[in-house]
Amino acid sequence: MARVLVIMGSKSDLDVVRPAAQILKSLGIGVEVHALSAHRTPDEAAAYAKGERGRFDLFIAAAGKAAHLAGVIAAHTAAPVIGLPVKSSTLDGMDSLLSMVQMPPGVPVATVAINGGLNAGLLAAQILAVGDKALRDKLEGYKKKLADDVLADDAALQKEWSD
Amino acid sequence: MARVLVIMGSKSDLDVVRPAAQILKSLGIGVEVHALSAHRTPDEAAAYAKGERGRFDLFIAAAGKAAHLAGVIAAHTAAPVIGLPVKSSTLDGMDSLLSMVQMPPGVPVATVAINGGLNAGLLAAQILAVGDKALRDKLEGYKKKLADDVLADDAALQKEWSD
Amino acid sequence: MARVLVIMGSKSDLDVVRPAAQILKSLGIGVEVHALSAHRTPDEAAAYAKGERGRFDLFIAAAGKAAHLAGVIAAHTAAPVIGLPVKSSTLDGMDSLLSMVQMPPGVPVATVAINGGLNAGLLAAQILAVGDKALRDKLEGYKKKLADDVLADDAALQKEWSD
Amino acid sequence: MARVLVIMGSKSDLDVVRPAAQILKSLGIGVEVHALSAHRTPDEAAAYAKGERGRFDLFIAAAGKAAHLAGVIAAHTAAPVIGLPVKSSTLDGMDSLLSMVQMPPGVPVATVAINGGLNAGLLAAQILAVGDKALRDKLEGYKKKLADDVLADDAALQKEWSD
Amino acid sequence: MARVLVIMGSKSDLDVVRPAAQILKSLGIGVEVHALSAHRTPDEAAAYAKGERGRFDLFIAAAGKAAHLAGVIAAHTAAPVIGLPVKSSTLDGMDSLLSMVQMPPGVPVATVAINGGLNAGLLAAQILAVGDKALRDKLEGYKKKLADDVLADDAALQKEWSD
Amino acid sequence: MARVLVIMGSKSDLDVVRPAAQILKSLGIGVEVHALSAHRTPDEAAAYAKGERGRFDLFIAAAGKAAHLAGVIAAHTAAPVIGLPVKSSTLDGMDSLLSMVQMPPGVPVATVAINGGLNAGLLAAQILAVGDKALRDKLEGYKKKLADDVLADDAALQKEWSD
Amino acid sequence: MARVLVIMGSKSDLDVVRPAAQILKSLGIGVEVHALSAHRTPDEAAAYAKGERGRFDLFIAAAGKAAHLAGVIAAHTAAPVIGLPVKSSTLDGMDSLLSMVQMPPGVPVATVAINGGLNAGLLAAQILAVGDKALRDKLEGYKKKLADDVLADDAALQKEWSD
Amino acid sequence: MARVLVIMGSKSDLDVVRPAAQILKSLGIGVEVHALSAHRTPDEAAAYAKGERGRFDLFIAAAGKAAHLAGVIAAHTAAPVIGLPVKSSTLDGMDSLLSMVQMPPGVPVATVAINGGLNAGLLAAQILAVGDKALRDKLEGYKKKLADDVLADDAALQKEWSD
Repeated sequence: MARVLVIMGSKSDLDVVRPAAQILKSLGIGVEVHALSAHRTPDEAAAYAKGERGRFDLFIAAAGKAAHLAGVIAAHTAAPVIGLPVKSSTLDGMDSLLSMVQMPPGVPVATVAINGGLNAGLLAAQILAVGDKALRDKLEGYKKKLADDVLADDAALQKEWSD
Repeated sequence: MARVLVIMGSKSDLDVVRPAAQILKSLGIGVEVHALSAHRTPDEAAAYAKGERGRFDLFIAAAGKAAHLAGVIAAHTAAPVIGLPVKSSTLDGMDSLLSMVQMPPGVPVATVAINGGLNAGLLAAQILAVGDKALRDKLEGYKKKLADDVLADDAALQKEWSD
Repeated sequence: MARVLVIMGSKSDLDVVRPAAQILKSLGIGVEVHALSAHRTPDEAAAYAKGERGRFDLFIAAAGKAAHLAGVIAAHTAAPVIGLPVKSSTLDGMDSLLSMVQMPPGVPVATVAINGGLNAGLLAAQILAVGDKALRDKLEGYKKKLADDVLADDAALQKEWSD
Repeated sequence: MARVLVIMGSKSDLDVVRPAAQILKSLGIGVEVHALSAHRTPDEAAAYAKGERGRFDLFIAAAGKAAHLAGVIAAHTAAPVIGLPVKSSTLDGMDSLLSMVQMPPGVPVATVAINGGLNAGLLAAQILAVGDKALRDKLEGYKKKLADDVLADDAALQKEWSD
Repeated sequence: MARVLVIMGSKSDLDVVRPAAQILKSLGIGVEVHALSAHRTPDEAAAYAKGERGRFDLFIAAAGKAAHLAGVIAAHTAAPVIGLPVKSSTLDGMDSLLSMVQMPPGVPVATVAINGGLNAGLLAAQILAVGDKALRDKLEGYKKKLADDVLADDAALQKEWSD
Repeated sequence: MARVLVIMGSKSDLDVVRPAAQILKSLGIGVEVHALSAHRTPDEAAAYAKGERGRFDLFIAAAGKAAHLAGVIAAHTAAPVIGLPVKSSTLDGMDSLLSMVQMPPGVPVATVAINGGLNAGLLAAQILAVGDKALRDKLEGYKKKLADDVLADDAALQKEWSD
Repeated sequence: MARVLVIMGSKSDLDVVRPAAQILKSLGIGVEVHALSAHRTPDEAAAYAKGERGRFDLFIAAAGKAAHLAGVIAAHTAAPVIGLPVKSSTLDGMDSLLSMVQMPPGVPVATVAINGGLNAGLLAAQILAVGDKALRDKLEGYKKKLADDVLADDAALQKEWSD
Repeated sequence: MARVLVIMGSKSDLDVVRPAAQILKSLGIGVEVHALSAHRTPDEAAAYAKGERGRFDLFIAAAGKAAHLAGVIAAHTAAPVIGLPVKSSTLDGMDSLLSMVQMPPGVPVATVAINGGLNAGLLAAQILAVGDKALRDKLEGYKKKLADDVLADDAALQKEWSD
């Protein structure tokens, strides 16, 4: 059963969102993915946040420009909402970032980097791992693998530069 | 009966919003003023936009930071929505402006200057005047008075600089 | 007879402006389209705003960089003026946006998103619909169709992600 | 026993951080508060993140300017790290925000608004509430109270504007 | 007879503009000073630029926010137009600067620093000095005096630091 | 004999600079063009400004990034210096613009738009035309031709949109 | 004998510069302090960089707005030049920072934080300590003291929060 | 033996970093090059800074986005640390620059231009040359060659423009 709702404001955001959903799936966490606009389908988007309590444990909301989707979700739930700002064709994502992160007191959105899909998914997993030792172990394994990859890259680099 | 809903995201925005309501009243246009947050009271805010059609002819929505209020209203109505970005304690209003003006295709918000309360009210009146010759006359009179004030200031300035 | 003047500062803005004119035409609203520069042909541009009163019910002005065209039009009319900031080759449209939206008290410009041609046209239609129930119905139909398209996209997305 | 470590880069950040600690305490969540710099005391700061696993369930890190503290914590733990950017004497907090939110793939920081201390605390509580129905109930109560306060403000506002 | 028109968009810009007029007067150059808005009194502002040719040799135009005044003047004259961006209450003058400097090909505005009134006046004098050896001598004298003042300050500083 | 020195900080700026030199030549104004860096060849660059007085009537200086060239020239002459900010590979020309326009009191640089080569040349011609009626006539002819081109474009546009 | 030249563009920068000179003095490093403008006294400023080789081992140059001073010094010496951007009355120091840090290939300026006087001085000392073990020891002692101060602050904070 | 450690946050930064390493090698200065992340391999990165004292005389750290690497190195050493901000896929390098340059009092990072690899290397050489007359001579030769190249380019340019 899906514990995380991954929602994007437009299907054109799918490439940015995909790494979030994939890392969650690869960690064995159920996700449901929707493309629903805070502005074109406000009630449908809100419905996923207002649904019977506990339906989702947390939310990842991706949007660009005047990126209100995460805020709309956060308005309707006390569950954690992760905001993923999407870079669009002007302003390099600065509008998306500020529209997400500058939330007013009382209604936080946990914002990650512009186009930071993987980190949105990892943050969701970290949150679910607070009460789940097995998942925490997986995340520590993932973290170790990240480090190992860096060290392997560095070792390869030494060969290139050692001559 | 009120034709214009003036809505602000926080009662702390009242000083910015007041000139909008005042110019409308002075032009004989009925306004209703509310302080309702897109994030803390989303359903109540939306209710004013979804209400029985025709209840309000147009909307002025003022908000700061991640300023979603105008977008939330616009999501629920086909009437014109004027966005009034409010300068808050950081970023000098740039966050408010971008959160309002950068709306996605299909759902416009007519954005005025940061803290531009008077202009939000005047724009509302201009919109209502499209089909109302008497109101249009009043606005042209107002425009003429603005010009006369500038010319009077300039005349006074000539005395200061003529010696 | 044209009710809306769509004016752009340079013929190179035509691709950004076209969606504005097209949505208006598709809604049965007469438009006249001109490419006139606030700086190279100031009198000709102003003439369309100062013309015999009532010639146009409202204006859409598109321009880039130091985008003064909307302000020039607004200086000469009490009708609503919609500003459409065009992204040019430097600064990503931020100069165009600020030059349009930051109008001084007394002379509003209803600014939409950078390169937001469709929204400029829709906002014009919303304004004309204030006193026109048939047009309002069309806009509500358009709004519903937008929502339906999103929901269809979302349904298609479910198939992709459900396996 | 403390479940949340609240850490700030300088004791001068205390006023921004205090609301985070206070809301957590008021919700019955144990916090430990430290002022340790990522740059002046890097090992001591990291030690709180590397400590025996499970010591803290999550972290709130507040810092200004080149705000590395949240990233340093996140580098050493797989637990969620909330970043709280602090506005300092130049650049209005934009440097703090970008230094926190733009984390590279693999190491997320859940960033809240500039000077958004209350939201940092609430987000921490929301995360702990994922597996804690009683806490979730408290947060929903808090959310309801926020809404009630807004509605009370709005009712008061009606009196002011109704004459 | 006045050779330079110093025009500001609002009488509130007078403190920024005054140094421009004063340096010109002190160099013996006739100035006429007006406060006329590009948006509230567009025809009156333009009239000073379109006037009988040669009436003014050049123009200094000061304005804030969506600062169109310099562009409006430049649209109506082939004489040099100096733009003086005024810092207003939001965005720290960045809007004023971009609205002035980013002029389209064919219609330059010679822009100086935000609130750079003295430099606007000096630039005007430099332009008039191109064909006026006596004025050029005065400007070189002024430049030398600036340097002497710096050197005197530096000498004083040496005493403070030499102990 | 050359009256205008056109100087660029790097030969890679030549495409931006060329329109400045070309418009001057086409107006019959002698130009000398150099590529000299304020940072790599400071003395050689300054020498062109300090040269025997009257050698050049004015200067156009083009540079990108930390664009000091115009300021270096202005430091050594009382003649007018036009600054032409060049867009480089990062920051979209904002660094070049601010490095040129924000000159301190006493040493103005007449700054034009980012990559605004044509306008730099036109401004130079406008300055020389202050005391040269024949050149002023040419510039007014050029201005009229700009307007005629816009009107011709607009007429062509009418055909496209009239069906 | 002075090994470090501390130079500022205006005596008004003295408060920002003082911590740089003081930390150097307290470490026993001779400094000479001058207030000389890159634009008003270019030759005098350059003279300190071009002087007989070895006169100064390195330079700290502080300036605001179009902050060219560090670049002017760097143009005339192969010794290290530290740039200290000064916040002035507009743009919050962003102009100063970009004018200093964005130097072209071949002529580096080692830029520190806006108004970061202490760090400019420390960086100078670190550079001189590369070949000076005694100075390196002092700097490590200073670093340790910084850490101890943070730890003492943190200990004090524990008392405040432990009740 | 390597005197300079060149460290980058990701192997994808190699193209930006290469000119730094190459200029150092060409000047006969030993470099060691590593790709180690401040966030994925924090201990390994710090180990190169904390290593037995004197192992490296100075550091060049390159990173993008929330670019903490230089700060992490600087936290663990009293040797000079040069920060090289890398432009990444969003925000044009502004995030990298601010994350590096805005270091808190006590822990400087000597920041060069965005993507300024060559300058990072030259600055390192300048620092090592403070106590090394032979290296200083090489750098002055390099500086002279830069100037000669500019002068040769300028001479070639004269041919192009002299007709």
